[in-house]
Amino acid sequence: MTQSFFYIFVIMKNKPSLLTMNFSELFVPGLSVDCVIIGFEDHKLKILILKWNSDIDGWALPGGFVLKNEDLDKAAIRVLKERTGVELPFLEQFKTFGNLDRGKRNNALEKVKIDGITPEHIEWMNQRFISTGYVSLVDIKKCDPRPDILSEKIDWIALDELPNLILDHKHIVKKAISFIKNQINYLPIGITLLPERFTMKELQLLYESILEKKLDRGNFQRKMLKLDIFNRHEKHLEGGAHKAPYLYSFDHEKYNKLLEQGFSFNS
Amino acid sequence: MTQSFFYIFVIMKNKPSLLTMNFSELFVPGLSVDCVIIGFEDHKLKILILKWNSDIDGWALPGGFVLKNEDLDKAAIRVLKERTGVELPFLEQFKTFGNLDRGKRNNALEKVKIDGITPEHIEWMNQRFISTGYVSLVDIKKCDPRPDILSEKIDWIALDELPNLILDHKHIVKKAISFIKNQINYLPIGITLLPERFTMKELQLLYESILEKKLDRGNFQRKMLKLDIFNRHEKHLEGGAHKAPYLYSFDHEKYNKLLEQGFSFNS
Repeated sequence: MTQSFFYIFVIMKNKPSLLTMNFSELFVPGLSVDCVIIGFEDHKLKILILKWNSDIDGWALPGGFVLKNEDLDKAAIRVLKERTGVELPFLEQFKTFGNLDRGKRNNALEKVKIDGITPEHIEWMNQRFISTGYVSLVDIKKCDPRPDILSEKIDWIALDELPNLILDHKHIVKKAISFIKNQINYLPIGITLLPERFTMKELQLLYESILEKKLDRGNFQRKMLKLDIFNRHEKHLEGGAHKAPYLYSFDHEKYNKLLEQGFSFNS
Repeated sequence: MTQSFFYIFVIMKNKPSLLTMNFSELFVPGLSVDCVIIGFEDHKLKILILKWNSDIDGWALPGGFVLKNEDLDKAAIRVLKERTGVELPFLEQFKTFGNLDRGKRNNALEKVKIDGITPEHIEWMNQRFISTGYVSLVDIKKCDPRPDILSEKIDWIALDELPNLILDHKHIVKKAISFIKNQINYLPIGITLLPERFTMKELQLLYESILEKKLDRGNFQRKMLKLDIFNRHEKHLEGGAHKAPYLYSFDHEKYNKLLEQGFSFNS
C-alpha cells in the first residue's frame, strides 16, 4: 500500500506525465523492498514506522519498489530516503520474503481517491509481491525522520509496543531482530546505536536489549574490554565526579578491523 | 540459461501442451532461485554443479524459476530436486542477488534448437532476473545426484577447483561460503557434513575447511567437548586399536537444543 501511494505522489510531484505510465514500465514487477531501521532509546530497541495519511488502518515499514535500471541494494537506500528523509550509505539485506500468504493490498488504491489512477495501476499493485528486507542500526539522535507526503506521521516505536502493521511487516521486523541477535554474537555491532561517549553499563544495556536476556556485569565488561576496541576517557574530577563511571568511545580504526575479522562476543 | 532449458524440457516431457504457454503465465517474472549445495570430502568443501548438455560453455548452480502459486522457499526445494535428484526438506536462504550487472543469458535459447521455442520465450528469458540464493550442507555419501535432462554431467567440485560458472554463480558461491563461515561462529553446524561417527580430528578438519584457517588442536577439542553435544563411543580393543582416537557421534537431542540457543564456537 504505502509504496503505491508513495510512488504515485512522487511521480505526480516530479514528473506529472509519468502518471500516465504503466507501472510495469517503470518498476521491476512484483518486487519490493522494506527497511527495518532500528534505534536505541530509553534502553529499548525502537523501529521507525509510518502511519498512513488516509483512513486506511495501520502502520508500515518504509518500503517501496525497485526501478528497472536500479540495483536492488540501491533501491533500498533510495526508498528509505524518499519515504523518511533518512539518508544512510548502506543498508544490510537480511532476508527475502516470498510466501504466498504475505497478504494482499486489497485494492487499497481505490480507498484514497487520486486523479489519474487507472485499473491497470490497481491491478499492478495487487499482483503477488516478493519483498527483500533491509536492516540498519542507527543513532536516533542523529536521525531526523520526516513523514513523506503519504504519511500522517512517522515515529520510533518500541519493539514491544508496535501497533498493527500492514501485510507481513510485523514478521519482517521479527526476522530483522533475529538477524541482529545472531550478528551480535560475532560482530561488535553497537557503535551506531550509542552516543559518542558511553559507559560500560550503557553498552551492556544495549546488548541486553538485543539479546533479550540479562548479562553478568563482570563477565560482560571483561569480555568487551578484552576486544581492545575502546578508548577510555579521563574523568574530570569535579565534585562527586570521581565516583562516576568511566566513559568510553569506540576506537574506529580498531573497531573496523575487528568488524572485518569477526569476533565472538561470548569468548 | 539452465533454468530455461530445464523448464522447457520438463514442460515438454510432462505436459507437451504447456510449451505453448507464455512463460509469464507460469512463472513469477524476473525471479529465480539458485542452490549452493555444499559437501565435505577429502578434507575439502565441494559444491554440486551441473555441466550443460549443449555446446554452451560453462557450469552452473542448480537453479530455476518460481511458480506463480508457490512459496519462494518451496521453489528452491522443488528446483533442487528436479535439477539434481537431491531431495532436502529444508534449504536456508542466505541472500538475494539483484545487481543490474548480474549478466544476461544472451539468447542462449537460440543456441540449442528446441521445437516450439518462440521469440516470446527468448524475450522472457532475457529479462532482468533477481535470484535468491539458498544453501545447504549435506553428507556427500548420503546424496545421489543425477544430471537432469539438460545436463551432460553433475559433479561435486572442490571450492578451489571450480570451473567457469555462468552469470554471477561464482559470486553466489562465495557469498554462501561467507554465510556459512559466519554461521559456524555461533551454530555448531557440521552434523550434516560428517559421517555418523567421526574423530575430533575429522571435526577439526571440517572447521578448518570452513573457516579457512588452522586451529589449535587442544583449544579446539576443549571448546567442542565443552558444548556437551557428543556421545563418545567405546574403543574396540583389537590389535592396535587402543591407540586409535575416540569416535564420537552427535547427541541429536542436545545438538538440536544448542542449535536453538546458538552458541559461540570461539568461547
